[in-house]
Amino acid sequence: MAIKRVGSQTVKLLNPPAIVSAASIVGPKEGQGPLSNYFDKVLEDDLFGEDSWEKAESKMLKEAVRMAVSRQDLMLPDIDYMLGGDLLNQLMSSSFAARDLQIPFLGLYGACSTMAESLSLSAMLVDGGFADRCIATTSSHFSTAERQFRFPLELGNQRPLTSQWTVTGAGAALVANDDGGPFITYITTGKVIDYGIIDANNMGAAMAPAAADTIGRHFDDTGMLPEDYDLIITGDLGRYGRDIASDLLKTKGYEVVKNFTDCGIEIFNPKKQDTHAGGSGCGCSAVVFCGYLFKLLREHRLNKIMLISTGALFSPTSAQQGESIPSIAHAVTIESKKKN
Amino acid sequence: MAIKRVGSQTVKLLNPPAIVSAASIVGPKEGQGPLSNYFDKVLEDDLFGEDSWEKAESKMLKEAVRMAVSRQDLMLPDIDYMLGGDLLNQLMSSSFAARDLQIPFLGLYGACSTMAESLSLSAMLVDGGFADRCIATTSSHFSTAERQFRFPLELGNQRPLTSQWTVTGAGAALVANDDGGPFITYITTGKVIDYGIIDANNMGAAMAPAAADTIGRHFDDTGMLPEDYDLIITGDLGRYGRDIASDLLKTKGYEVVKNFTDCGIEIFNPKKQDTHAGGSGCGCSAVVFCGYLFKLLREHRLNKIMLISTGALFSPTSAQQGESIPSIAHAVTIESKKKN
Repeated sequence: MAIKRVGSQTVKLLNPPAIVSAASIVGPKEGQGPLSNYFDKVLEDDLFGEDSWEKAESKMLKEAVRMAVSRQDLMLPDIDYMLGGDLLNQLMSSSFAARDLQIPFLGLYGACSTMAESLSLSAMLVDGGFADRCIATTSSHFSTAERQFRFPLELGNQRPLTSQWTVTGAGAALVANDDGGPFITYITTGKVIDYGIIDANNMGAAMAPAAADTIGRHFDDTGMLPEDYDLIITGDLGRYGRDIASDLLKTKGYEVVKNFTDCGIEIFNPKKQDTHAGGSGCGCSAVVFCGYLFKLLREHRLNKIMLISTGALFSPTSAQQGESIPSIAHAVTIESKKKN
Repeated sequence: MAIKRVGSQTVKLLNPPAIVSAASIVGPKEGQGPLSNYFDKVLEDDLFGEDSWEKAESKMLKEAVRMAVSRQDLMLPDIDYMLGGDLLNQLMSSSFAARDLQIPFLGLYGACSTMAESLSLSAMLVDGGFADRCIATTSSHFSTAERQFRFPLELGNQRPLTSQWTVTGAGAALVANDDGGPFITYITTGKVIDYGIIDANNMGAAMAPAAADTIGRHFDDTGMLPEDYDLIITGDLGRYGRDIASDLLKTKGYEVVKNFTDCGIEIFNPKKQDTHAGGSGCGCSAVVFCGYLFKLLREHRLNKIMLISTGALFSPTSAQQGESIPSIAHAVTIESKKKN
C-alpha cells in the first residue's frame, strides 16, 4: 500500500479527490456583508419559513446539500456518505437534515473546525476507494448558537469588542474523483491545544494557539513555506485571534502576514455591521469556502490555498466547572490544478 | 484503485485492519453485572477521584486509551488519529481527554452509535493507508447523561419499564495493520431512520427501526445471511428494542433469533440490578465490545460477529420543539481470522 503519511500529522493524497461542486446559503446579515455576491442563496428571514431557528438551521444545511448535489446532475442516492455536523447539542441541525436526505451519515463534532474535518474525512474516503462521492457539510445560526452557548437573545446583553458574531449559514461541498478541480492535496489533522483562556467572549484568543500549532505542523511536515500558498485562511479567529496566531507562527519561524487572513474577518464589515472581532461558527468557514474561495479556485484566481477551520471545544458545563477552553484546528490544502 | 463498495451502504476492507488491542473501564454497577470478569478495570467510585462526574467520564476515556496503547508497548505519539466521541454536549469527555492525550483528534457524534462509527472510520483510515494506527474510543456515564438528557438525579424520578440504564464506562480499541486478529472486514454505514417515536424513556423502540434497516441493508449488500454470523449484537436496544428489531428484520425476510442479542441486555442482570430494559449509552457497546467480545474473538470462541451500535439522535431542544426521535445504526463485521 502506498504510504500517504508526511511527517507526524499530515497526509498527502496520492490521487487527490476533487471538490466537484459546492453550495452556500446565508442569513440576511451575511447577505449584507462584503461577500454577498458570492453566496448562492441569501435568506430574507433567518427563520427560513420554519417555526424555530433550529429548524431553520437544519433546513439551510439540507438545502445546501441538495443544491451541491443537483449542480452535478446527481440525485441524493448517488452520494455514498454525508459527513458533517454543527454547533447544536446532539448535532440537531445535521441529524434532522440527514433524516430527510437519507444519505448514509457520519456525524462529526469539532465545533467550528468541522468544515475542515468533514472535507478531510471525505477526501480520505474518496482517495481510499471507500466512496465515489461524499458530501461534506456544516451549518451554524446566530440565534441558535447564542441561546445555547451564551444568553437568551431577549436579554439584549452587551458584547465586548473581542466577541464574534456567529454566522447564519450552511455550506456543502461534494467531494469525488474527477479531473476538474479544485483538488484536496494535503490534510493536516490537529491536536487539542489549550493555553488556559477562560473568556467565552474571546474565542479568537482561545483558538489562535491551535491554529498556529496546526499551520506550523503542516509546514514542518511538508517542508512547504507560507509563500508556497496564495492564501492561508483560518476559520473564525477574528481580528484579534488572527494577530495572535500570526505572532505565534513567527515564534515557530514562519512569517505569515501578507497572505494570511481569516474567514471571520472577510465575511462582515465590522464598522458597518457591528460585528466586533468578526464572524464565527461552523457556518463561517463553510460559507466562505463553499461560496467564495471555491469560486476563486475554480476560476484560477487562486491556485493554492490552505483552509484551517478552527474550533473551541468548550461546553457551558465545562465552563461552569472551571475548565479553560480547549481548541482544535484542522487544515486542508486545496489546489486548482492537479500536479503530475 | 480497488473498488471497495459492496451494494449501496457497505464497504469490504480488502486488506482488513486488525484490532490489535482493546481496553475497558466500567463503573461499580457494571462491575456487579454478568460481564464483570471481562472488564479491565472496575471503578469503586464513579467519581474516579475527580470533583465532577463529567471529569470522571473524561478520565475513564483517557485511561482506556492509555491502557489499549500501552498493551502494545506503544506510546501515545505512535498513534496517528484518535476517533471518538461521547454523549455530552460538545463532546466534553472526549475533547478534554484528547487535550491531555495529544493525539490528532477527529471528534465524532453518533449518540450511542459512536463506537461502531469510530471503528468504521478507523478501519477505513488504516486500510486506505492514511494511518498506521488509530484509536477508536467512546464513553458514557450514568450520572452525566441522566442530568443532561432527563432530570437532576436528586429528583429521584421513577423510571418506566421501557427505560434503560446509561452505562458508566469507556472503551478503546487500537486499529492497525497486523497479522493477528480480530479483523474488521465489512462496514455498513447507517442512514437516519425515524418511525415517529417521541418517548425519551423508550429509546429501544426509537432505535430498533434504524438497527433493522442497517442489518437488513448489510445482508442485502453482501448476500450474507444471519446464519453466517456466530453473533449479531446491537449496541443498546434493550429487551423491547431487540424484539422490535427482530420482528422488523423478519418482515425484510431475515430471521435473526438464535444468534441475535444486544450489548444492553448482556451487561446487566435486570432482576437483581433494577435496570429495566437494559443498558444504554455510548459506553455500552464500547465496553461490551472492548471488554467482552474482543476477548472471545481473540480466543476464537467467536469467529465472526456483527456489532451494530445504535444511536438516538434526539436532543432536549428537538424534543421540546415537538420533534420525534431520529435514530441511526452503524455495523461492523469483525472476524477472528483473515480470509485469503
